[in-house]
Amino acid sequence: MSLHINRAVAEARTNIALVKYWGKRNEALNLPAVGSISLTLDGLATRTEVRFDPSLAADTLNLNGTPAAGKPLTRVMRLLDLVRAASGRTGHAAVTSSNNFPTAAGLASSASAFAALALAATRAAGLSLDGAALSNLARRGSGSAARSIFGGFVEMKAGTQEDGGDSIAAPLATWDVRMVVGITGEGMKATLSTDGMRHTAETSPYYRAWVESHPADLAAGRAAIVHRDLQALGEVAERSCLSMHGSALAARPGILYWSGATVDAFHMIRALRSDGVGVWFTNDAGPHVKALCAPADAPRVEKALASVHGVVRTICCPPGAGAVVIEEGA
Amino acid sequence: MSLHINRAVAEARTNIALVKYWGKRNEALNLPAVGSISLTLDGLATRTEVRFDPSLAADTLNLNGTPAAGKPLTRVMRLLDLVRAASGRTGHAAVTSSNNFPTAAGLASSASAFAALALAATRAAGLSLDGAALSNLARRGSGSAARSIFGGFVEMKAGTQEDGGDSIAAPLATWDVRMVVGITGEGMKATLSTDGMRHTAETSPYYRAWVESHPADLAAGRAAIVHRDLQALGEVAERSCLSMHGSALAARPGILYWSGATVDAFHMIRALRSDGVGVWFTNDAGPHVKALCAPADAPRVEKALASVHGVVRTICCPPGAGAVVIEEGA
Repeated sequence: MSLHINRAVAEARTNIALVKYWGKRNEALNLPAVGSISLTLDGLATRTEVRFDPSLAADTLNLNGTPAAGKPLTRVMRLLDLVRAASGRTGHAAVTSSNNFPTAAGLASSASAFAALALAATRAAGLSLDGAALSNLARRGSGSAARSIFGGFVEMKAGTQEDGGDSIAAPLATWDVRMVVGITGEGMKATLSTDGMRHTAETSPYYRAWVESHPADLAAGRAAIVHRDLQALGEVAERSCLSMHGSALAARPGILYWSGATVDAFHMIRALRSDGVGVWFTNDAGPHVKALCAPADAPRVEKALASVHGVVRTICCPPGAGAVVIEEGA
Repeated sequence: MSLHINRAVAEARTNIALVKYWGKRNEALNLPAVGSISLTLDGLATRTEVRFDPSLAADTLNLNGTPAAGKPLTRVMRLLDLVRAASGRTGHAAVTSSNNFPTAAGLASSASAFAALALAATRAAGLSLDGAALSNLARRGSGSAARSIFGGFVEMKAGTQEDGGDSIAAPLATWDVRMVVGITGEGMKATLSTDGMRHTAETSPYYRAWVESHPADLAAGRAAIVHRDLQALGEVAERSCLSMHGSALAARPGILYWSGATVDAFHMIRALRSDGVGVWFTNDAGPHVKALCAPADAPRVEKALASVHGVVRTICCPPGAGAVVIEEGA
């Protein structure tokens, strides 16, 4: 227990899964049913300050400039409890967090948020965890946050241990590609990932086949990254995305995360590909579209995506670094 | 063999499957892997004349005012061959067919086309088949055509016989509902149903689960029609549609029949339902949207669908009658 350090600021970037995570094998410990492969993105970051303060009557959360309560605060408090248990530090904390992109709109804000929180909270509590331990802790806040601890291409292992000790991410490689994000709206998504995953696992007739077909996609994704084969990676990304949504669509009732703009953007990306541009789409639990391509093709992809009715903005993201400490001290 | 009748004109209406047909167990005989339940629609019809003429050097096809060759002509010739074999009539035929709606754009034009052709060709050849035999013959032209022989709600049996003798449709009930069709474009669809079904069956990890989960949807659809329970029917229709597309999306590469307007219309229909309107969507191998509702709600549904960006036209269809002979003689 360290009393002289009680404050830390950390930053983490979001990541986009190319081989998707969808479904938990243990919801309490946030253990995934399947592994995943992602790319951490530069430009879509969360900066979080954690300040342990003995004078506080309760943990507090300020999210993008506004005091937060309810579910977001509860999730933060649970992570702080884990940090308090691991560090022996007592007392409440004030957490101040801000994203430089829309919250809970399918841009994986929980990934960057819980990666930044895990790093800031452990440092503020006087702990200095290695990447694997940080990844394990971040996972307790959000499954995808385990990947944002690391930069570049990252693989999250589903793991087999009951306590989740091996449900952690590890870096695979760095490789200069681009992810062009097409923002299709700034609204909140209709079904949160955790709820959508549970509903899919419980009611979709395709969920078992999703889990069973997944290891082959992971192997293909890993091999594509090892060989720097953008076409192979793009193909596995597109099919993993469509399979994830196909399984969710078949839930009862079906979950439809896409908007019209999402689908029109998918067609636009396939049309670009027919024209010889190496670009493949992916998309998560929201309406935004992400296009994977080589750096040289990014301007053309960005222009094409921006021309789709309903796409309000594009962001071109190079690979990003892992979570970093920005400040620490009293 | 009858020489004095050599010409007949028949009309058949399209139908929309509420419990979907997707996948064949025998492509040569066009035997479906799963049964289906449909509604035959008034207002979307094909009128076909077949004229057996000994002076013709070959079968000919005029489709919507234009001489047709290639695949459409080949499919028509194959059906005429079956009629010639069954009737003993020799000689070629001139077939003239026209739709009052866009061809091959996901409005099941092959359903009305082959139902009308089966009826017109058999009558022109001097045969008078019952509904079951006509349904069996129409199926050889197009799986969904087997249902358009009958009016109202119709069930197509997958059947178990190797020769397809029990792969036929039969009427279930008549019940006054409305199907509001939202036309999202007049273009040809990208992947024809037969090709899409084959690709899904061969490559989708979800295809087996689709086939296995299907009998429960058929039973639910049948029960809903027996009890005139529009909500139960709508729910099974929506989930059968999303499951069919979910399976096709997971094919490799994934098949995406929807346009942006399709998906925006789905959301619009769900929003109407949240507002208390009893309306449910379905959609086939193309971008158009079909909304099932009570007659009294149809004007509101039509107006809402028409307001969706990309929906160019709406058609409100009551249940339609089965295939009928319009003229016959020399």
